Amino acid sequence: MKEIHNLMAFRPGVKVVDATLRDGGLVNDFYFTDEFVKALYLANLRAGVDYMEFGYKASTEMFDVNKFGKWKFCRDEDIRAIVGENATDLKIAVMADVGRCDYKTDIINRKDSPIDLIRVATYLNTIPAAVDMIEDAHNKGYEVSCNIMAISNTQEGDLKAALNILGQSPVDVFYIVDSYGALYPEQIARLADMFMEMAAKYGKTVGIHAHDNQKLAFANTIEAVGDGVDWLDATYASMGRGAGNCAMELLLGFLRNPKYNVYPAYQFVDKYMNALKKEGTVWGYDLQYLMTGLLNQHPRSAIQFTKDGRTDYTEFYREVVAMD
Amino acid sequence: MKEIHNLMAFRPGVKVVDATLRDGGLVNDFYFTDEFVKALYLANLRAGVDYMEFGYKASTEMFDVNKFGKWKFCRDEDIRAIVGENATDLKIAVMADVGRCDYKTDIINRKDSPIDLIRVATYLNTIPAAVDMIEDAHNKGYEVSCNIMAISNTQEGDLKAALNILGQSPVDVFYIVDSYGALYPEQIARLADMFMEMAAKYGKTVGIHAHDNQKLAFANTIEAVGDGVDWLDATYASMGRGAGNCAMELLLGFLRNPKYNVYPAYQFVDKYMNALKKEGTVWGYDLQYLMTGLLNQHPRSAIQFTKDGRTDYTEFYREVVAMD
Repeated sequence: MKEIHNLMAFRPGVKVVDATLRDGGLVNDFYFTDEFVKALYLANLRAGVDYMEFGYKASTEMFDVNKFGKWKFCRDEDIRAIVGENATDLKIAVMADVGRCDYKTDIINRKDSPIDLIRVATYLNTIPAAVDMIEDAHNKGYEVSCNIMAISNTQEGDLKAALNILGQSPVDVFYIVDSYGALYPEQIARLADMFMEMAAKYGKTVGIHAHDNQKLAFANTIEAVGDGVDWLDATYASMGRGAGNCAMELLLGFLRNPKYNVYPAYQFVDKYMNALKKEGTVWGYDLQYLMTGLLNQHPRSAIQFTKDGRTDYTEFYREVVAMD
Repeated sequence: MKEIHNLMAFRPGVKVVDATLRDGGLVNDFYFTDEFVKALYLANLRAGVDYMEFGYKASTEMFDVNKFGKWKFCRDEDIRAIVGENATDLKIAVMADVGRCDYKTDIINRKDSPIDLIRVATYLNTIPAAVDMIEDAHNKGYEVSCNIMAISNTQEGDLKAALNILGQSPVDVFYIVDSYGALYPEQIARLADMFMEMAAKYGKTVGIHAHDNQKLAFANTIEAVGDGVDWLDATYASMGRGAGNCAMELLLGFLRNPKYNVYPAYQFVDKYMNALKKEGTVWGYDLQYLMTGLLNQHPRSAIQFTKDGRTDYTEFYREVVAMD
């Protein structure tokens, strides 16, 4: 399935999605400065990135607006303050979680919104609710993708059943999401084959969102693109929950489509991401994330370990093994 | 070529080589404490590692013994002070660089030495000298491997010619070495096929030594093992020159042979490697190494950037691009 020649050529259908504000926002409760967000937008434009995900459309009933930065809620006017009319090739995305979003009221018609793409995130047990959100977004004129999270602990039969339901919905993209950072490239290849087969059956495309618990986010992403997966999530300096994501600066260096430029990504990491790190914002590959990844566990215990400033990794391993 | 079933089963021929002292020594000029080296030896024993590389057999004529720790020179008595008679399953290795080693005098007969394996390191233009070293070591009773360095900027025809010469020598293992951290898994697969074909022709086995410039050291190593490569180099916490190596703690978590145990690796990283980092020893993936890796350059400029404590990554990129 791997296409070695694609290290020289490129597939025009490949799209790069910047998820820095959304997945990175999980690290700093979405408190990014306007200067940062504006600079990120400009970096994405210059780098040739296809989609920029601004954050979540989270329910203000469920989440206290005083406890999170504005990108947890992604009001249209806040996006517009950054992008204006966005008369560019860079499309705007937001994520909407099943059960945590008042999509019927908070997502307005696309023609009146700066948003282009609604990314519906669901677990396997809430597919019908996801379909309702997909239909709502589609009917309002949006492109729609669907992230099926935590697939490393689902059964293939269940996953196929879910894709058969989603295939009949108006969703545009099925996303492979390795929420726990548990998957190896060989397993990504196997999943990509299955997702590609289902996508072909229903006329959809496939995307990937990888995590770096085993330092494989980039490797799994380029495995997937070699297997035919077209939509690739990345974040600058890998910023994202826990171990973080596929690094934008790695991905843009790999892709061969001349519309992508890695230099603006270097500049952005240099000036903005390294500043965030220096200020004490902590994310990225470390032993505690490797441990939960290897054990195919949700990273929440590892994130807590990081938050608590703990460094007793061996003791942590004893704790997480005991949870199994 | 990938063997997905091997994520469940295992290939008994796979060997893990700990290169922490040798490649890590390039970061701290081989100044490891005896306590560290002893603890590393015990960790390797408990983890089921197959070979432990102690360092280099460097020429004391060429290198000032007062400017390096003892593992740059690996005198037999220094190794013996750590391992005694080494009545264990863990074999002892040292590296000998073409042109930087007085092998005729400094490497004695294996029956009088604690060393089991001589790892000859060569560039493509010094193959005949490497063969001389290989024959010398073989005649003294050692197992012998040969690392062909910097293969990412060699031509396939030259590499084949070199392997045809080495194939006729008494070397036991051909090593794929991605010195610049420039190769992607698809390229590793292609190289592994070629090395495996030549190894089959001459009855040799194949190894891999990867670097983490593009965060692919582990991914490239598991790509290679899926392609039939048996000898796998790793270092604790990825310690190694520049961006470092495939992490032992990742590799042991991946391998399925029950003789390997990841827990002692976690313990060693927790107690010893993190202490080295805290003391200010710097290695590992960072933007400057990604840049030289992507440009397929020797990492020396990136290492200098790190040593100088520079953080002007964008300016560095302008410098290295100009070198091309």
